[in-house]
Amino acid sequence: MEKEKRETSVRRLTVVLVMLGMILALAPGVMAADPTGASTLEENPGAPVDYVWVLICGFLVMFMQPGFAMLEAGFSRAKNVSNVLMKNLVDYSVGSLAFFAVGFALMMGTSAYMLVGTDGFFLAGEAYDVGTSLTWFFMLVFCATAATIVSGAIAERPKFSVYVIYSVVICAVIYPIYGHWLWGGGWLSSADFMTSLGGGYGALDFAGSGVVHAVGGYVALAGCLLLGPRIGKYTKEGKPIPIPGHSITFAVLGAFILWFGWFGFNPGSTLSAHELRISVIAVNTNLCAAAAAMTAMFITWKKFGKADVVMTVNGAVAGLVAITAACAWVAPWASVVIGIVAGFIVCYGYWFLERRGVDDVVGAIPVHGLNGTWGLLALGLFADGTYGNYATAAPFITGLFYGNAGFFGCQLISVVVNFAWAFGTGFLLFYILKHTLGIRVSPEEELAGLDISEHGVVTYPDFVYTEPARPTRIIRMSEAVIERENEPKTGEKGG
Amino acid sequence: MEKEKRETSVRRLTVVLVMLGMILALAPGVMAADPTGASTLEENPGAPVDYVWVLICGFLVMFMQPGFAMLEAGFSRAKNVSNVLMKNLVDYSVGSLAFFAVGFALMMGTSAYMLVGTDGFFLAGEAYDVGTSLTWFFMLVFCATAATIVSGAIAERPKFSVYVIYSVVICAVIYPIYGHWLWGGGWLSSADFMTSLGGGYGALDFAGSGVVHAVGGYVALAGCLLLGPRIGKYTKEGKPIPIPGHSITFAVLGAFILWFGWFGFNPGSTLSAHELRISVIAVNTNLCAAAAAMTAMFITWKKFGKADVVMTVNGAVAGLVAITAACAWVAPWASVVIGIVAGFIVCYGYWFLERRGVDDVVGAIPVHGLNGTWGLLALGLFADGTYGNYATAAPFITGLFYGNAGFFGCQLISVVVNFAWAFGTGFLLFYILKHTLGIRVSPEEELAGLDISEHGVVTYPDFVYTEPARPTRIIRMSEAVIERENEPKTGEKGG
Amino acid sequence: MEKEKRETSVRRLTVVLVMLGMILALAPGVMAADPTGASTLEENPGAPVDYVWVLICGFLVMFMQPGFAMLEAGFSRAKNVSNVLMKNLVDYSVGSLAFFAVGFALMMGTSAYMLVGTDGFFLAGEAYDVGTSLTWFFMLVFCATAATIVSGAIAERPKFSVYVIYSVVICAVIYPIYGHWLWGGGWLSSADFMTSLGGGYGALDFAGSGVVHAVGGYVALAGCLLLGPRIGKYTKEGKPIPIPGHSITFAVLGAFILWFGWFGFNPGSTLSAHELRISVIAVNTNLCAAAAAMTAMFITWKKFGKADVVMTVNGAVAGLVAITAACAWVAPWASVVIGIVAGFIVCYGYWFLERRGVDDVVGAIPVHGLNGTWGLLALGLFADGTYGNYATAAPFITGLFYGNAGFFGCQLISVVVNFAWAFGTGFLLFYILKHTLGIRVSPEEELAGLDISEHGVVTYPDFVYTEPARPTRIIRMSEAVIERENEPKTGEKGG
Repeated sequence: MEKEKRETSVRRLTVVLVMLGMILALAPGVMAADPTGASTLEENPGAPVDYVWVLICGFLVMFMQPGFAMLEAGFSRAKNVSNVLMKNLVDYSVGSLAFFAVGFALMMGTSAYMLVGTDGFFLAGEAYDVGTSLTWFFMLVFCATAATIVSGAIAERPKFSVYVIYSVVICAVIYPIYGHWLWGGGWLSSADFMTSLGGGYGALDFAGSGVVHAVGGYVALAGCLLLGPRIGKYTKEGKPIPIPGHSITFAVLGAFILWFGWFGFNPGSTLSAHELRISVIAVNTNLCAAAAAMTAMFITWKKFGKADVVMTVNGAVAGLVAITAACAWVAPWASVVIGIVAGFIVCYGYWFLERRGVDDVVGAIPVHGLNGTWGLLALGLFADGTYGNYATAAPFITGLFYGNAGFFGCQLISVVVNFAWAFGTGFLLFYILKHTLGIRVSPEEELAGLDISEHGVVTYPDFVYTEPARPTRIIRMSEAVIERENEPKTGEKGG
Repeated sequence: MEKEKRETSVRRLTVVLVMLGMILALAPGVMAADPTGASTLEENPGAPVDYVWVLICGFLVMFMQPGFAMLEAGFSRAKNVSNVLMKNLVDYSVGSLAFFAVGFALMMGTSAYMLVGTDGFFLAGEAYDVGTSLTWFFMLVFCATAATIVSGAIAERPKFSVYVIYSVVICAVIYPIYGHWLWGGGWLSSADFMTSLGGGYGALDFAGSGVVHAVGGYVALAGCLLLGPRIGKYTKEGKPIPIPGHSITFAVLGAFILWFGWFGFNPGSTLSAHELRISVIAVNTNLCAAAAAMTAMFITWKKFGKADVVMTVNGAVAGLVAITAACAWVAPWASVVIGIVAGFIVCYGYWFLERRGVDDVVGAIPVHGLNGTWGLLALGLFADGTYGNYATAAPFITGLFYGNAGFFGCQLISVVVNFAWAFGTGFLLFYILKHTLGIRVSPEEELAGLDISEHGVVTYPDFVYTEPARPTRIIRMSEAVIERENEPKTGEKGG
Repeated sequence: MEKEKRETSVRRLTVVLVMLGMILALAPGVMAADPTGASTLEENPGAPVDYVWVLICGFLVMFMQPGFAMLEAGFSRAKNVSNVLMKNLVDYSVGSLAFFAVGFALMMGTSAYMLVGTDGFFLAGEAYDVGTSLTWFFMLVFCATAATIVSGAIAERPKFSVYVIYSVVICAVIYPIYGHWLWGGGWLSSADFMTSLGGGYGALDFAGSGVVHAVGGYVALAGCLLLGPRIGKYTKEGKPIPIPGHSITFAVLGAFILWFGWFGFNPGSTLSAHELRISVIAVNTNLCAAAAAMTAMFITWKKFGKADVVMTVNGAVAGLVAITAACAWVAPWASVVIGIVAGFIVCYGYWFLERRGVDDVVGAIPVHGLNGTWGLLALGLFADGTYGNYATAAPFITGLFYGNAGFFGCQLISVVVNFAWAFGTGFLLFYILKHTLGIRVSPEEELAGLDISEHGVVTYPDFVYTEPARPTRIIRMSEAVIERENEPKTGEKGG
């Protein structure tokens, strides 16, 4: 089988990479920097609280994975739920391995020409160190967040194998290289022409409105465009038809988990508990999400006469995305304003894209893409000069409204580069995959649902679905599935 | 439309408040106290671990929001789930904004006559500070907990717009003023006649059995009384009929999330990691919940011959509520005893209220109201003199069983005031709303379910409901809903 | 009734135990060690960050309870969900009380002959102390994890009352005694013949691959063998028939929650934030889980032609189990290797056991049992000599691959003892219960589902099940259930 051959190649590649890692890891023996932490502690007796802070915040960011999984599962139809969940499991797992093998080194390794990092592959040698491990873990969970954003947008029609490959590429290459430019000492934050333009600092992105969310959002845009909309999403005249997800409860649970996890995402990005600004960051994060959720709710209330749940949920997440770049550098009142704008962007952005044929199942493009961009701009506008840049010890950050037009210019450059990189590499990736492996399941498989066609499973076998016809004819079942069919106890199932 | 006019007023009010906030925020310029945290850190080098502790505990308390959302959704019928979830999103979001604009200032601002705080509106001026932000965040998540308790009790029949208004009022006024009396330097904790009665300290409530839970519970009681029971809750003879919720799984998930979040709620209320008593608090919290859950389970096992899931779940939460006031000041064995009593209170309290026509969908009144009161009393009984009051550096707290009858008197006063304030203001609020806007949906809307009537959505469109008739005739659908009806892909849906 | 008599005995026993506790607690008065924490803080000014670390990690471990609950509920059929959830509530609650009364003392009290601890019952006397409370809480959540593993394996057929008794026994006796041998100064870690064999240290288990997971897993094996498989699990020829669970969504949510909670489980087991190795532990934990999940996925992909969701989920948890013993003492690359092996073990272990008549509903035996054992061995193989044993200040730990064959011998002894103890005591417990109370419900009750037969409840009353026949004839309903039957509003329900 052609398909199995490809899978075998993937597995072989994995084996080779792991072996390569073992060789790299064993080669330098025990000459690693500080694997016990003893000398780090001696040099910096205040390190424990920083480690505790960064690790626990990292755990919270990792917990955003089930947040996304529940949000995306809830917004998908019952016949595609297991597939969405599997994609979330895969992007985190494969992402962890790819970021371990390659991504981290490209992002945070010694910079070559301010373009890409060059060491730290497989956390081997010097990178087997408590400090590097701390950074690795925190950076990994951010990388995995960028990766998982895409799964929701392109849900319900891509091949599962394509998603596995995509996960490797975004976590090994697309995310890390762009991350290097902002957070790894790369040109967007540190090149001379940028820092002189910004007035001592270049483009900034505190916790990743651009680095994480807009990258995920615009890769998702590329994916949606190349995949095309789901069957039944548009009338013949091109009018969009709402396809409701199967469980608003899971979606709301997911959104609340994301909100919770974001308190790791944003305040944790100080990378130090000695920055007491963390309290202001938490306040700003919360206020912006609240303002955006309520704005989106009132917009739909006015438009439809009823407060819309889905858009309120997306509003909350949009507010979280929008404040992410600016959360450390703006005042609480500004966070409310940023959130109100985010609420408008998510509603009108979603409707705009939907009308133009972009079938984004969960609204990831307006939520993470457009509001990621808005977050970068908002930082350039509202930064009020009350706090600096912990990493570079730069002067306090001020935006356009406080007189620093140059920094707003840096952010504009950042916005353009961000879109070009994410959409460009995403388009290239999915374009190559489309014209080699193919990226979309067959119409029969799509109608049957990806749970059956890609995983041979019914997500909720004990319940009667509203679409009762079970498309057994058109699906070549695996043995496992056939066995389940014959299973005498659970009778006729939906699917 | 009358309804839309009101909504417009709400929106206009929001805009005015936000603008007022901006003016207040911009007026004092950058004369804020310590927005960077640098001078706070210099004065108190041990601050980072306290900030980490309070923030992470605050995050856990925030995470109780999805806990309540899942608990309440699980205990509601499928046709009302989205509405319950929206109420949870709204009370946290609107609550955040109302507490930002007004509530925090009334609660924690400079006290006027020990009755109400007077500054800190919009976190502007001096309140733009790392320490104030820390306090704000921790106080907000407690305020939002009080607010969200009500949504479950009064589920399945109030108008959604009324709930939005209620959320503003409880977070801006009802909760903060009472909170001021206990935690903001107000009269219950600090007036001379109280502290002399208590033997050096007045009424106490460590983490909010009264301030948070009983306030929420008794506002809920007022709401239930003014709304009246759901259609079908009672026979013609007034005998209560159980109306089971749609998903015990979500309810149990919610209860476990609450249990988890409570470890932020109670231990975090030291507001400092330098109080190592936090470990005892965690132990007490856990033991009381466990004892209460098992007590409730055995009560139902004896009464019905089977261990009841719903009451076990409510027992766990009741135990958490009951230990909240006393958790820092009692011994582990006392926590077990308090939990056993809490288990009895929640069962018999629920059945008592249900027989008397109080239709409390999730049992919030016995869980949070009655057990909140019991928590205040238990503190007055079991405080064992092994630990003091961190905030006021008062002597070690002792209760009636350890010889301090005066302090028990303080707690009795607190119990009466707590009920009077919460029930009184809650009754006033819902009474005014009832006789102006109206607080209850029409019987047709209630029968159809609030998801359709208030939000135009079916929570689980891919599943067949046991009540298949879809009441399309009696509901004036919004355009969005009609579109969904016509959607060709998902066939006939439940609802 | 025979059954009620037994229940009464259980309740009476509880009352006696609680009273005994109160007497013990009151007897020594206030001569407790350091209930305020003031002197602990004075002696060790760095204690706050350690307390924060251990407590928050403990909270995360407690949060694994809903992780297990969701995983097990998702893998169970809809008719048994409430029962599984109740078991999770019970083992945590009863476990808390049993560990409070007895278990903790046996595990961590002053050792008698390196076999069992002897003081600290009811946290009374000297044990009413901030340090002891901290240890108690952290140890409790581990104990409860071991307990809850069993509920999933033996789901869908045991009597609920038996599970309550089991919960008491494992938390009061089985787990604590074995835990004493490894973590409480007992013979496996500390006897002279062990430490001389290991080269300065005896058998080790950093965070409990053996102590927690394999103990749970092998008690589960004993339970499964004595209970026998579910009706319908095997054909007449003994061929296993898959019985799919009712909700993959809940199962995946549970797995992600477990992954999240494991970051408390493993890094938290340093019991100190001053061990900066916590960052390496977090990295290792994550990499192993990722590698195991992907390995299991690719195995099923190859075998069935489709990537299997259930096995991927179990793979992730298996990887978490496998790294738990070794996480502090191995390199990141080794964690990946350990995870790949774990992925093979969970798949082939599950299929092996299933073919031999072991009906393990959630796969707990391969996940926790076999991979727990693998974790102990992996530590003996891969420990690389870069980190020591915090508790005993032993030399840096090295395994077989780094020249320490003796330590691998210690681990082999530990593996054998672990299986013998867990399987032996588990078998004894369920054997006695089987031949006294009986451990399995009647076939009629099993077919009807344990929700109805044991708890008188339908978990999802608003949805139509695929097995619509409601077995009202064969179940003697409690009054509460009959009332629900008559409830006029929700019509005909599934179940």
